[in-house]
Amino acid sequence: MIAPIPFQPDQMQSDRLELGVCYYPEQWPREKWQDDARRMKELGLSWVRVGEFAWAHMEPRPGDLRWEWLDEAIDVLGRAGLKVILGTPTAAPPKWLVDLYPDILPVDTKGTVRKFGARRHYCFSSRRYRQEAARIVEAMAKRYGTHPFVYAWQIDNEYGDHDTVYSYSKEAERAFRLWLAERYGTIDALNAAWGTNFWSMRYGAFEEIELPNNLVEEPSPTHLVDFIRFSSDQVKSFNGMQADLLRRHAPGRPVTHNFMSNNFDFDHYEVGADIDIASWDVYPMGGLLNGRLSDDNKARYLRTGDPDQTAFYHDLYRAVGRGRVWVMEQQPGPVNWASHNQAPADGMVRLWTWLAYAHGADMVSYFRWRQIHYAQEQFHSALLLPNGEPDQGYQEVAQVIAEIARLPAGARRKKAEVALVVDYPSRWASRALPQGRSYDATAIGLDWYAALSRYGIDVDIVGQHCDLDGYAAVFAPDLLIVDAVFVERLAQCGAKALFGPRSGSKTPNLQIPTSLPPGPLNALLDMQVVRVESLPEFHIESVLHGNETYPASVWRETIRTSEPVLASFSGEYRDGAPALVGNSKARYLAVVAQGDLLMKVIGDTLDWAGVARQPDLGDLRVSRRGPLHFAFNFGKVSAEVPAATEAVFHVGERILTPIGVAVWTE
Amino acid sequence: MIAPIPFQPDQMQSDRLELGVCYYPEQWPREKWQDDARRMKELGLSWVRVGEFAWAHMEPRPGDLRWEWLDEAIDVLGRAGLKVILGTPTAAPPKWLVDLYPDILPVDTKGTVRKFGARRHYCFSSRRYRQEAARIVEAMAKRYGTHPFVYAWQIDNEYGDHDTVYSYSKEAERAFRLWLAERYGTIDALNAAWGTNFWSMRYGAFEEIELPNNLVEEPSPTHLVDFIRFSSDQVKSFNGMQADLLRRHAPGRPVTHNFMSNNFDFDHYEVGADIDIASWDVYPMGGLLNGRLSDDNKARYLRTGDPDQTAFYHDLYRAVGRGRVWVMEQQPGPVNWASHNQAPADGMVRLWTWLAYAHGADMVSYFRWRQIHYAQEQFHSALLLPNGEPDQGYQEVAQVIAEIARLPAGARRKKAEVALVVDYPSRWASRALPQGRSYDATAIGLDWYAALSRYGIDVDIVGQHCDLDGYAAVFAPDLLIVDAVFVERLAQCGAKALFGPRSGSKTPNLQIPTSLPPGPLNALLDMQVVRVESLPEFHIESVLHGNETYPASVWRETIRTSEPVLASFSGEYRDGAPALVGNSKARYLAVVAQGDLLMKVIGDTLDWAGVARQPDLGDLRVSRRGPLHFAFNFGKVSAEVPAATEAVFHVGERILTPIGVAVWTE
Amino acid sequence: MIAPIPFQPDQMQSDRLELGVCYYPEQWPREKWQDDARRMKELGLSWVRVGEFAWAHMEPRPGDLRWEWLDEAIDVLGRAGLKVILGTPTAAPPKWLVDLYPDILPVDTKGTVRKFGARRHYCFSSRRYRQEAARIVEAMAKRYGTHPFVYAWQIDNEYGDHDTVYSYSKEAERAFRLWLAERYGTIDALNAAWGTNFWSMRYGAFEEIELPNNLVEEPSPTHLVDFIRFSSDQVKSFNGMQADLLRRHAPGRPVTHNFMSNNFDFDHYEVGADIDIASWDVYPMGGLLNGRLSDDNKARYLRTGDPDQTAFYHDLYRAVGRGRVWVMEQQPGPVNWASHNQAPADGMVRLWTWLAYAHGADMVSYFRWRQIHYAQEQFHSALLLPNGEPDQGYQEVAQVIAEIARLPAGARRKKAEVALVVDYPSRWASRALPQGRSYDATAIGLDWYAALSRYGIDVDIVGQHCDLDGYAAVFAPDLLIVDAVFVERLAQCGAKALFGPRSGSKTPNLQIPTSLPPGPLNALLDMQVVRVESLPEFHIESVLHGNETYPASVWRETIRTSEPVLASFSGEYRDGAPALVGNSKARYLAVVAQGDLLMKVIGDTLDWAGVARQPDLGDLRVSRRGPLHFAFNFGKVSAEVPAATEAVFHVGERILTPIGVAVWTE
Repeated sequence: MIAPIPFQPDQMQSDRLELGVCYYPEQWPREKWQDDARRMKELGLSWVRVGEFAWAHMEPRPGDLRWEWLDEAIDVLGRAGLKVILGTPTAAPPKWLVDLYPDILPVDTKGTVRKFGARRHYCFSSRRYRQEAARIVEAMAKRYGTHPFVYAWQIDNEYGDHDTVYSYSKEAERAFRLWLAERYGTIDALNAAWGTNFWSMRYGAFEEIELPNNLVEEPSPTHLVDFIRFSSDQVKSFNGMQADLLRRHAPGRPVTHNFMSNNFDFDHYEVGADIDIASWDVYPMGGLLNGRLSDDNKARYLRTGDPDQTAFYHDLYRAVGRGRVWVMEQQPGPVNWASHNQAPADGMVRLWTWLAYAHGADMVSYFRWRQIHYAQEQFHSALLLPNGEPDQGYQEVAQVIAEIARLPAGARRKKAEVALVVDYPSRWASRALPQGRSYDATAIGLDWYAALSRYGIDVDIVGQHCDLDGYAAVFAPDLLIVDAVFVERLAQCGAKALFGPRSGSKTPNLQIPTSLPPGPLNALLDMQVVRVESLPEFHIESVLHGNETYPASVWRETIRTSEPVLASFSGEYRDGAPALVGNSKARYLAVVAQGDLLMKVIGDTLDWAGVARQPDLGDLRVSRRGPLHFAFNFGKVSAEVPAATEAVFHVGERILTPIGVAVWTE
Repeated sequence: MIAPIPFQPDQMQSDRLELGVCYYPEQWPREKWQDDARRMKELGLSWVRVGEFAWAHMEPRPGDLRWEWLDEAIDVLGRAGLKVILGTPTAAPPKWLVDLYPDILPVDTKGTVRKFGARRHYCFSSRRYRQEAARIVEAMAKRYGTHPFVYAWQIDNEYGDHDTVYSYSKEAERAFRLWLAERYGTIDALNAAWGTNFWSMRYGAFEEIELPNNLVEEPSPTHLVDFIRFSSDQVKSFNGMQADLLRRHAPGRPVTHNFMSNNFDFDHYEVGADIDIASWDVYPMGGLLNGRLSDDNKARYLRTGDPDQTAFYHDLYRAVGRGRVWVMEQQPGPVNWASHNQAPADGMVRLWTWLAYAHGADMVSYFRWRQIHYAQEQFHSALLLPNGEPDQGYQEVAQVIAEIARLPAGARRKKAEVALVVDYPSRWASRALPQGRSYDATAIGLDWYAALSRYGIDVDIVGQHCDLDGYAAVFAPDLLIVDAVFVERLAQCGAKALFGPRSGSKTPNLQIPTSLPPGPLNALLDMQVVRVESLPEFHIESVLHGNETYPASVWRETIRTSEPVLASFSGEYRDGAPALVGNSKARYLAVVAQGDLLMKVIGDTLDWAGVARQPDLGDLRVSRRGPLHFAFNFGKVSAEVPAATEAVFHVGERILTPIGVAVWTE
Repeated sequence: MIAPIPFQPDQMQSDRLELGVCYYPEQWPREKWQDDARRMKELGLSWVRVGEFAWAHMEPRPGDLRWEWLDEAIDVLGRAGLKVILGTPTAAPPKWLVDLYPDILPVDTKGTVRKFGARRHYCFSSRRYRQEAARIVEAMAKRYGTHPFVYAWQIDNEYGDHDTVYSYSKEAERAFRLWLAERYGTIDALNAAWGTNFWSMRYGAFEEIELPNNLVEEPSPTHLVDFIRFSSDQVKSFNGMQADLLRRHAPGRPVTHNFMSNNFDFDHYEVGADIDIASWDVYPMGGLLNGRLSDDNKARYLRTGDPDQTAFYHDLYRAVGRGRVWVMEQQPGPVNWASHNQAPADGMVRLWTWLAYAHGADMVSYFRWRQIHYAQEQFHSALLLPNGEPDQGYQEVAQVIAEIARLPAGARRKKAEVALVVDYPSRWASRALPQGRSYDATAIGLDWYAALSRYGIDVDIVGQHCDLDGYAAVFAPDLLIVDAVFVERLAQCGAKALFGPRSGSKTPNLQIPTSLPPGPLNALLDMQVVRVESLPEFHIESVLHGNETYPASVWRETIRTSEPVLASFSGEYRDGAPALVGNSKARYLAVVAQGDLLMKVIGDTLDWAGVARQPDLGDLRVSRRGPLHFAFNFGKVSAEVPAATEAVFHVGERILTPIGVAVWTE
């Protein structure tokens, strides 16, 4: 029997990659727990997450708290040598609770109450739910806060899943009014911000305000974006309430939340500020199908996933976690929830694990230990088949564990040379004012990231609040709302900057800047945007850059500027108009660039900023973590990794086969 | 004047095909009835259906029963020599009734009450509606049960049309709770079946259960499928209530219901068990447009319809009617309700009539006698134009009537060599757990049937309850839930069996079998399915079968087996993995086969089972009824029918022109 | 300072084109008004529209009427020499009003109340809203009715925008019942008209009738079309109420309403009968994207708009205004509300202005003066940028103003040789009975108009009530409901007539005529339609016309006739059946003709009627206004205009460059 590891702060953080798994003791007979724990440890796992959907087991009837099963489960897991991450169960209140207090339930955009029977059936604005959530979390925290086997806490589960950040309930309306009163102070200030002189929309009091659903036509964009901001703040305060309770009763134990990819419904930086480690749930197969690629490219990457999407979110959540990021759920095989659910290629579970480590994750936990044979996720694969036999993912985890030992310890990811700006309020701004069905900020941001990755560049994702010192280049693909302080810090740091179209085009109140767009960016660039247009899919613009002409679409701006013109539009409409302008500090792109044009512009910008780059890596991706160099082959043929001739390979080889991983030092 | 035919049991069933028509005396002036009846008889019709939408005429005000118009209509029709099928009017309760008792109205999935103004505006769970339906049916049955001209009864009309099997009303919720209490006995048993340990979904009492609509995310699949089963049982008991009343008051008169194609919302075998003859409504033009074929094939068969869909439903409803099947409504020309409403080719009304007879129908009734010039179906053609002139369909019916006399009498359809399993609970299982948007059990079942038909095979459709003795081959394209008794009977009979992917993959409670899929089929095949995946349209798998490679898509399974591998996957993912395995008794296909691969697998299976087959018949279809051989040409060029050289042709010739019908004996 | 122009009837109508602009003093600081007015006048504008969304400024609290700001604004504008069009503010009731009387709010088709927060948030049937609207309009009219600077009145704004003609409120239900009682007198008459003998739909009293939403299946088409007619009448009476008040208090000032393109939700002729000038809002960029053209053609005309759609609506609203038509809002650049919002080519604002004048408009007003920097329409361009600088549109307006002086004065549009029938009840008939998803009456009407335009023909659009004398040819593409009086007048006038399929196919109660279609047209043509079919996109019919075979689709009819057959169907289905029949007076087309077939049929008909035509003009369009000939080049290459050799060019030249305008006399 392996000795248990009671909580010790220095055990929290290994100097090597650690692995874990999600486990649901409440779903399996107690007689299996012991053996499961033993096999987890045998495989080489260090962490186990439990509890985050077990409220009905903790409190089967009002006030009837039952901890003995959880006591035993934690004991069994801890004694086996596993560090427990304990989840608060607030993502799924029990039926008796929503029956007692129906105003817990969220309301959808049509005004229909969303019923019990799945999960996330609560409204963040329900005062009653806040009380009840606090009650159960405090009870848990008191009981397990200093438990020797409980090493970390997860709050709730996947905020925003199933479109649950926004609730159109009476409770939300009430809270929204208070939030607006707080934000604006006077109703006149709100009228000015929302522009209610338009269409006779003027309000006489905060009590008159309603939620922006079921209108005759779209609401004021400021009305809409304020509702998004309010909803984001509700998530932050709900999460913060739990974090406070945990900090009080579980001192020294880090607190996390498991975020999702592809969700910009609330400001993750804001929620991240209240936790110790940002974790997220990695599902590249569904991510591919829901994502930005064409059907041809989806077919090409069907069993590997988008080569850049997963890395992007590692880098984003590293920023959200201020440097500390975990994978709380890693897809271990095919799952159940996407429009189609293809299997990953054999080897991808290993590849994704090393990809996470390369991008800064210190822990990767697989979802889940054993495939469950019932309920909604019975098609979700696991490390074990439903009958307990090891599945493909199990074998790959075993391989990773063997490989960990071959790497030098203590590698830490360094600050990158290149920063990419992701700004939640700007995302909300383009959502509230899309001005064209094809403008997709999420896709644009990923496209820029992917272009950087194809040049072999390590990227830090930053918000406007982040430190910019030391970056050679800052890329801002969709920074609609620019903070003047950010511009000043950018001006003062040494970085070159590339801005996408729409940058600086909106004030914080979602109005056009008095000086015309790009508003505060005029501190860097002498230019005005005097016309914008969004373009349908079937229309192609031409951009002349150097001696080449490139197709472009989606969005075009007309710029008036004294800055040098670096590329221009060609064609019958405003032939020769600037498409890319810039000076020695900053450049501005007047078009949504994709494909070859985007590669050209990004490559040029890197050269200009003096950032060394690889030639286009094709399906290969590279990343660095301290002294370690990583390469990943997402393609269908072998490829040579860009390693120095004297490189020492710890994992893999210079010629990397498909789905292969190489790790070397130089 | 032709002598009337008062009810005599031996008149019920002719030894030749009989024809009929649907007629609505309440829609025409009384002065037309006599002439209409005379012309029906003159044309050669034997049957006339009346009454199924006439409640407002039978009872214009609460309790004010008016039978005299119906007395007269039946009298006029009967005296003309026609046998009357009388319909109960419960598919369309009158306005005053739903105003008196608003809880009769059904509720849609969003929770909105579905209003009066069309038809089928009732909830099967409304206790009040059951009382009122019983009241009007009993009154009718008492009056006409032993009427000399009323030969048969139709209950209600087209259960399930307009998505009306499922109602989300308070009455349905109440009835669902009772049904669940009956099914499970204890709430713990329900919790176990639904897997409510997942996501904290545990229920404390049956009174806590709600209907599975408007949830935040999908419900437990068992919750959903139990609601489908409950709703199916509600249809059965509503129908059974009427059947009991009719049997009591109309002894000896057969009872039918007119089912629809393409509706699997309730278990038709279960409803069929309570009636004497299964009838159905044949609309191949809309069926084509709503159906499984590609747009290219829809264009090809635009004016003939899918060559297999109609035959499939004849065979299905022959099983539902335990051998007795009628066509209650046959499309006589273009209709009104599809997305587009093309005209059938001239000759198709005749072809469909003979197709019905070949597949076992004893009676074909056309919808309707005269095109109506008002209301929702005014574009629905009829045997007569709105002004009373014969339309195209009339001429074709006259031709059929002339041809009937040229055939030998007494032909009965024999048991086929080949059975195809259609199982309603399995259909519901894949609906509740689709696991991939492309998996369409209805299309898969039809594809398998069509492949058999293209080889000239007569097929019996069977449920798991049916007798399997005498079949040489049993095909189960989508039997997700396999009954152990069925497996045992299959094992004991002489048939070879081919199972499609997902067979045996779910227990009756929609859980994964403890032994892994294919669960009970392990009695026939030593194999386990260790991975399933659903695949998007743009991805193609390759299957190596014999020396040929075939494309495949939609669904792929990874199988572990000791059985011989008969075909395998080829390609970069799990190259060589089994795609078809089997032993001397059963084969299992690990992929959704379509096109050439499906033809190859079905053809091989027939050969293996020793079932003689034709070469691929292309657009020709054949069928046998007793000594009679039928061929139908759905193509655009003439084709030779597969008749013995000594064949005697009663209708048509060996070289069959497009839209042609040939009938011969050998 | 330019002298103010106090109201004088003879100043109302210039003998040259006048220009104007929409202005919102309530949205700008008072200190800007003076300068704005001065610059408007300086540019050469004559008209300014104000007030139509300012209720909250006129009455910020119940009964607290504030006119001083409007007094001042009108004074400033009038003193600058501008003629004011004053809008009633009823399109946007203030928040306090809908909070006081919630039954003002409209209800959508699902039964959901449509909330405050944008515009048009009122139900036309709300009795309370009628009172309140009358109150504010009367107050305005009393104050400004004889104001020396107020030259004209606009009622409300864009009836029908955001799908607001139809409201499913309790107030609407109540009013609908009264309207039905008025229309039918007895419930039996309604039952007969709606055909409630079908599906047991019979009503016992008007109080039983409900609105035709949320039914199980489609309602009786007569039920639906009566609701459309009722809703149309509600718009008419709401508008008429305001017109009456304005006439009483503002004698001699013309009253207008600004209609929209692409809206057939109410009978514009009926509303037009109550106003003095029909005006409309010209947005060709969004019109293109929402319109009838293929994606290829949308790409081709991306920055010019559909070359025929705008002209069509000029001609339609000229009919609605009984000869008097204004453009109240002209797109001055890219806007904000379409799926994409491309910029018009430079020169299009000028082109559209001259196009309007050529088609009979006497005044063109641009929307709007200065781009607003907040609220829903902040991306809507204007004559000035948000910072007050002139934008592209401003420059083009200046060019137009310079050109106006170069044209002879007093040109009036003459009656055309060709009339095209647009009939609202017929449009509603095909909406209520589409009988095929591809049948689009709006597209069909525009296609016919476009074919005439490509032959250089000036067209008058006419309703069935219009005078037909003097026309050489009358085209009726979709006249489903034909009035017998119209047929008689058509028979007596000298015009030749071409009818599209479905003509005369429905009685006013939406039933099939007793004599079969084309019903009343039998007075002109000896024929019956004995079969109709709608056809899916993927199926093509062939029509043999002369020696050529043409593709056709969408709709096909089978005709029985003694008239000469002018074109026939060819192919496997009913080969040789008539596709076009006719005699010396009228022709009937049995198919929806498009593309080459339509050009062939329209060209032949013009020749037959003796109307001189040009060869196909391609991307050139021509129009005549009195002695003035206009040509417009919508293409990408220069083209020669069809001017006589002796033509004198006042604007442009014989060889017209892309986006060019030529005006000449001959």
